[in-house]
Amino acid sequence: METNMTISTLPISTELIAEHNAALMASVDEDYDALGRKLSRTGVDIDVVKNKVAEFTVAVPSWGAGRGGTRFAKFPIPGEPTNIHEKLEDCAVINQLSQATPRVSPHFPWDKVDDYSALREEAASLGLGFDAVNSNTFQDQLGQAHSYSTGSLSSTDAATRAQAVEHNIECIEIGQKLGSTDLTVWVGDGTNFPGQQDLGRSLDRYLDSAAEVYAALPGTWRMLLEHKMFEPAFYSSVISDWGSSILAAQSLGDKCKCLVDLGHHAPNVNIEQIVARLHRFGKLGGFHFNDSKYGDDDLDSGSINPHQLFLVFNELIEAELHPREGFNPAYMIDQSHNVTDPIESMMASADAILTAYTKAILVDRQGLTAAQEANDTMLAFQALRSAYKTDTSPILAKVRQEKGGAIDMIQAYRTSKYRERKSQARKPVGLGSGIV
Amino acid sequence: METNMTISTLPISTELIAEHNAALMASVDEDYDALGRKLSRTGVDIDVVKNKVAEFTVAVPSWGAGRGGTRFAKFPIPGEPTNIHEKLEDCAVINQLSQATPRVSPHFPWDKVDDYSALREEAASLGLGFDAVNSNTFQDQLGQAHSYSTGSLSSTDAATRAQAVEHNIECIEIGQKLGSTDLTVWVGDGTNFPGQQDLGRSLDRYLDSAAEVYAALPGTWRMLLEHKMFEPAFYSSVISDWGSSILAAQSLGDKCKCLVDLGHHAPNVNIEQIVARLHRFGKLGGFHFNDSKYGDDDLDSGSINPHQLFLVFNELIEAELHPREGFNPAYMIDQSHNVTDPIESMMASADAILTAYTKAILVDRQGLTAAQEANDTMLAFQALRSAYKTDTSPILAKVRQEKGGAIDMIQAYRTSKYRERKSQARKPVGLGSGIV
Amino acid sequence: METNMTISTLPISTELIAEHNAALMASVDEDYDALGRKLSRTGVDIDVVKNKVAEFTVAVPSWGAGRGGTRFAKFPIPGEPTNIHEKLEDCAVINQLSQATPRVSPHFPWDKVDDYSALREEAASLGLGFDAVNSNTFQDQLGQAHSYSTGSLSSTDAATRAQAVEHNIECIEIGQKLGSTDLTVWVGDGTNFPGQQDLGRSLDRYLDSAAEVYAALPGTWRMLLEHKMFEPAFYSSVISDWGSSILAAQSLGDKCKCLVDLGHHAPNVNIEQIVARLHRFGKLGGFHFNDSKYGDDDLDSGSINPHQLFLVFNELIEAELHPREGFNPAYMIDQSHNVTDPIESMMASADAILTAYTKAILVDRQGLTAAQEANDTMLAFQALRSAYKTDTSPILAKVRQEKGGAIDMIQAYRTSKYRERKSQARKPVGLGSGIV
Amino acid sequence: METNMTISTLPISTELIAEHNAALMASVDEDYDALGRKLSRTGVDIDVVKNKVAEFTVAVPSWGAGRGGTRFAKFPIPGEPTNIHEKLEDCAVINQLSQATPRVSPHFPWDKVDDYSALREEAASLGLGFDAVNSNTFQDQLGQAHSYSTGSLSSTDAATRAQAVEHNIECIEIGQKLGSTDLTVWVGDGTNFPGQQDLGRSLDRYLDSAAEVYAALPGTWRMLLEHKMFEPAFYSSVISDWGSSILAAQSLGDKCKCLVDLGHHAPNVNIEQIVARLHRFGKLGGFHFNDSKYGDDDLDSGSINPHQLFLVFNELIEAELHPREGFNPAYMIDQSHNVTDPIESMMASADAILTAYTKAILVDRQGLTAAQEANDTMLAFQALRSAYKTDTSPILAKVRQEKGGAIDMIQAYRTSKYRERKSQARKPVGLGSGIV
Repeated sequence: METNMTISTLPISTELIAEHNAALMASVDEDYDALGRKLSRTGVDIDVVKNKVAEFTVAVPSWGAGRGGTRFAKFPIPGEPTNIHEKLEDCAVINQLSQATPRVSPHFPWDKVDDYSALREEAASLGLGFDAVNSNTFQDQLGQAHSYSTGSLSSTDAATRAQAVEHNIECIEIGQKLGSTDLTVWVGDGTNFPGQQDLGRSLDRYLDSAAEVYAALPGTWRMLLEHKMFEPAFYSSVISDWGSSILAAQSLGDKCKCLVDLGHHAPNVNIEQIVARLHRFGKLGGFHFNDSKYGDDDLDSGSINPHQLFLVFNELIEAELHPREGFNPAYMIDQSHNVTDPIESMMASADAILTAYTKAILVDRQGLTAAQEANDTMLAFQALRSAYKTDTSPILAKVRQEKGGAIDMIQAYRTSKYRERKSQARKPVGLGSGIV
Repeated sequence: METNMTISTLPISTELIAEHNAALMASVDEDYDALGRKLSRTGVDIDVVKNKVAEFTVAVPSWGAGRGGTRFAKFPIPGEPTNIHEKLEDCAVINQLSQATPRVSPHFPWDKVDDYSALREEAASLGLGFDAVNSNTFQDQLGQAHSYSTGSLSSTDAATRAQAVEHNIECIEIGQKLGSTDLTVWVGDGTNFPGQQDLGRSLDRYLDSAAEVYAALPGTWRMLLEHKMFEPAFYSSVISDWGSSILAAQSLGDKCKCLVDLGHHAPNVNIEQIVARLHRFGKLGGFHFNDSKYGDDDLDSGSINPHQLFLVFNELIEAELHPREGFNPAYMIDQSHNVTDPIESMMASADAILTAYTKAILVDRQGLTAAQEANDTMLAFQALRSAYKTDTSPILAKVRQEKGGAIDMIQAYRTSKYRERKSQARKPVGLGSGIV
Repeated sequence: METNMTISTLPISTELIAEHNAALMASVDEDYDALGRKLSRTGVDIDVVKNKVAEFTVAVPSWGAGRGGTRFAKFPIPGEPTNIHEKLEDCAVINQLSQATPRVSPHFPWDKVDDYSALREEAASLGLGFDAVNSNTFQDQLGQAHSYSTGSLSSTDAATRAQAVEHNIECIEIGQKLGSTDLTVWVGDGTNFPGQQDLGRSLDRYLDSAAEVYAALPGTWRMLLEHKMFEPAFYSSVISDWGSSILAAQSLGDKCKCLVDLGHHAPNVNIEQIVARLHRFGKLGGFHFNDSKYGDDDLDSGSINPHQLFLVFNELIEAELHPREGFNPAYMIDQSHNVTDPIESMMASADAILTAYTKAILVDRQGLTAAQEANDTMLAFQALRSAYKTDTSPILAKVRQEKGGAIDMIQAYRTSKYRERKSQARKPVGLGSGIV
Repeated sequence: METNMTISTLPISTELIAEHNAALMASVDEDYDALGRKLSRTGVDIDVVKNKVAEFTVAVPSWGAGRGGTRFAKFPIPGEPTNIHEKLEDCAVINQLSQATPRVSPHFPWDKVDDYSALREEAASLGLGFDAVNSNTFQDQLGQAHSYSTGSLSSTDAATRAQAVEHNIECIEIGQKLGSTDLTVWVGDGTNFPGQQDLGRSLDRYLDSAAEVYAALPGTWRMLLEHKMFEPAFYSSVISDWGSSILAAQSLGDKCKCLVDLGHHAPNVNIEQIVARLHRFGKLGGFHFNDSKYGDDDLDSGSINPHQLFLVFNELIEAELHPREGFNPAYMIDQSHNVTDPIESMMASADAILTAYTKAILVDRQGLTAAQEANDTMLAFQALRSAYKTDTSPILAKVRQEKGGAIDMIQAYRTSKYRERKSQARKPVGLGSGIV
């Protein structure tokens, strides 16, 4: 089964990347220099910005490498990966071209293998490490002793809760073998009818179960709670909002933090303020980046509302500058690629995330703070808007090129004909729906 | 395959129903009489109301007989139906106990059989007829020539559009054999990215294709367009709202009407006003009843917001009293039963729908109109509220009992041990997700 | 100015009420008896329910006695009150007829007078006491030293913050004279532009200022924080959601609790779960009852979504039965009566609130819990639905009649011609907009 | 009263503007040239873009020159205008510095004067003309015969409807004197309670009244219907959404079109698709530009979601390239400046609007269409994203400078000390709330 273990070279030819970059380098340099001159007028050294951006990375989810779908349908593409080895290979392409996604976040039992040391080596040979481990107690697996139809960590059934706790602990154990240090816990527990469960006692059970998982955390690990307003439960969810999430995290202990998925909130909610609040109270643990218009749409990061993504990063820069009780968020892309090639979407998303980060770096913080103190609303706003308006593409292109990635990731990827090759080699995915 | 065709008796024993009713009849009579006296004080004859309610029916969807799920998971129950014959049998149970759901709405290709005349007879032997036919161009089927991954009626690909048109026409042909007179058209066509398709030209293509379907409608048939804000498309949907729906219906012709699904709207929208608007402009064609809190949750009718359901029926009674260009809406339940026995949910939903209808009948229309004319807002509101407050259960119980149904449907159903028997006889459903 | 101080009789003639009730008593008795028989079948003693309901009361806001408006306009009615004395008189009418609203919640500086002992006596002579005191730091008053244009408790300006703190402390002092024991703090502080203020430091300043107010609380007092998603600030609000509210309350201390206004949440949010969460963590302090469809619409309680109101009370009954760290919520109506006579609206709202409470009492708790434990979703839901369906009007009518109120409050009020009399006696209100 | 009629010079010194520009010109030229080189690589001539942008203008509303407020409060600033003459002067500043807002949209009766010819000349002397006339039937005026408390065009009261019709016709007459050719009709008509009015008959009355106004339209005029979801009515609005708006416009006739206010929609709605739909059916009449996060927040254009503004302009460019039944939308800013100097906000908003327009021009339309036809979702999206990423500031700065405006409008305005001068000269605004 571990047939890909012998991969020793990266999936995209470095010559191809070099040729690609060579053709575009003059333009990038010209634009970079022009932007550098513009920024220098306001006292900003573009190279300092570039170096800071070069250090920023975001994890990709193993499951994101496959085509996603809805409850209605999934439309597979030729060459899709169907196991963790193929998924790692695709993630290696993303990282090779973007030079921004060196870690993969695994999901169990989807990514189960017999030998995790070998998997870790396999990933390393592709230039990849492992990020937060994700447990799955929202789906039944073949042969599973207790169904999660009544919930998992909050189920009324003690044996089901024990099974869910045990699975989370198993995820920690696997994660230790893979070099992870975070466990992300998202449960689908909730109700579809008023009265289906008692809203208070459900949370009691959740907290009791979660405490058992928390107790099994190794010393350096963190437990990241991910809230979600709705879906799969449509009347109530046990951890439905950041309020529930932070109160649960407080109950569980210092190593428990909150994870923000950008698509898991009520309509109109100010997500950047939630980020600021979680940081203010020492509980900001990480992000699942994506975008949405209606709900947990799992669209590509920044595709719908890039300004919101910028405002989130503006809070993250503020948090970095004013750390409360530590600031070390885990960043991960979490998207469902229903209509694109997942590799292209994740490269474009990494670019959108780094763009938001770069623009947030460019904000004149002194000017912003001064305007805020003076209640000069227009200048305070313009401090953000001025940075947001900047076209930071030359900085990101330069960062990628200098790190060995591709200036135009999509173009380089298409030139490589990677997917076409895989569509010959890999077994096709059947029809179906959902995310499995 | 047509092994159930020889069913000649109804699935639930009439003796069981009679015994069940006998035990509860005295209470029902007492409550009915008390309500009758109360209503008579305001000049309402309870028997007149009862007789009107007895005539009201709503269709059930064949697919609703199976357990539903989300993109994350489906949790099957023992004894679920897996083909149209078993689904009809379950629908017969619903109708037998509720006496309110004598028609089944089929969905193709899910309900495909070789012999539709036989299917129609089979249904008739169970006391059932067929309602609106539903086409499916949002999913690919094994062996299908053209994928709907680019949309269906609005696809840029002419062959795909032609296939979708042909499938709809085939649905009409099947429907004619089954005795249907309506075609319900819901498409998942839309986009996940800004720019993915041109918003204007997509609609042009949709209208062209829909016109071909419309042209194939038999003289007595109607085409019902069902709009939906989002899902499976998460940036734009071709027929996303009632505005798009009614403009499309106007373009297509008099036989094209709009269908309202209660869960397909933007947050906070006043759905009863949409009903009033569609009626005002002669295009109200039908309903898909369900309930929702967040989106297309497909929850049980009236479980979340029974007052909204009442307000919708208040508009329907107004429409009946003031018909504009005809008023003959097709009523259907359309729910996803993720956490309950579908038979129980559809019986309870039929009760919720009839309850809303009955309360709407009880509104003092003269008083309401007079208060409206006088701008006496409080009395106008109280005219509605007074009817809504009424406990109409005795009327509904009496209607069911008199028609041969069960006073307490859930209790009678559980006493019958119907599902337990089926769980022995039917083959189990595998794990999976989605609605297929 | 204190011209109404000599009122020694209640505003509505007790003879009128008695006559009104006499005409309706036979019907009420008949309905009450019929309901009693029905409830007794399930082991419920209607008199026990009635006696519990008779003890429930809700406060009315002084400002609610005047006609409300929007930023666009206010349409006054003849006979509106324009000072606290006239407002008390109107509140006395509400309490006299409803027998459910014996306390008035004052708002300063709107209700400022020279002699608070006299005001307390005046209220007492009308059968009224005082409830939670509301401070106002969202508006500038003539002659005020520092404008709240930059916010109040969170303003960057120290003098403005000090002024806001001082005003809150003054409200406590006035409240002590009036017999109140709660201070409700709602601030309009927030921003209209990204970047206008730092989201973290704004909260720091708010917490510092609030701590000064908290320090001034007498031993038996509570401080109730009221969150609101938006308006008057339209990009961010300092205390925007229950998460911010409970974290602030935790920071401030045990005497600080959270107040839930039903119209201050994001679209689609499950408010009854927020109630359950606040109770679970010992911070549920009170309610502002109203209803809404779009935002802080301040519509009449239960007029839009009476089922939600019932579900909220279902949580309150659960909380009462399972107190965590005390359970003593302050209940108040908080509505803007833009299109009705405020007296009629508040009487109808008291009825809607007591209706929801009564139905929540009727829930078969044992059956509900048993169904929840057994994951029998349908029976759990039906336990709630069965209670919700009950027409509890006879119980409420009987409670009112026995306590000296009116069986049909609106009718009795109109018969009294109270407003017509006041329209002769009171000075007219000018045109304008807003809530002042 | 017409004391400002003798103004013959523009409010800001042209020397000041010239000096201001001189100091920044070198930087603008450098950035413009760099951008020009970059654009030329993809075949775009920056001067062609610049010339197209130079022709784009947007109207400003007379009432927008004053500080806005909410129902809770308004915080005036020194030097606010309090009559149409002062408002015109402020609008002249905006146009002088932005060179993009040469028309003012008046609102009656707020802007009533005795001599409209004189007013037109006064405006002309300030470089201004008049845009669409706005009627006001949502507020009562002193001495008005019939109150709009029951609605206006849809009121049940015939005299009230007649008064509203007459006012609209008077607005047309005034508009003819001012040189306008559009009448914008927004009504606050609606309800706060279910049942308050019949939803169908309200629309009938609205349409009857609107037809009388329509009949009075001069041959070259248009009537623009503006829908709004809620506020001031909080349960239903007569023209609540684009569906109601377009059906009403169809009923009224060819000269009636629909106006889109960006803040008047349900949460999550795809506004750019509404734009495309209105254009598709020949009824797109104009825009009220602003931004919002929660409702009709009336925030500065593009301050919350600049990407949405870009997507709207992307549709407008598509509409321009593919005109259906004419395409001549009226563009107007419609904002409430609660926390900023209105002059600064409207200059910044004009910039945001022109920025969105410029980026939409930069979209590679051929590439976009080709990618759409090929269902190459990623490239289609990137065609938009690539244009959106571009920093178009140099183009806009150059346009302003060449037309005589200021490169940095806010800085030039502040240097002029215009507001300080006016705060000496103008009478102060009192406290209050709302928009009057």
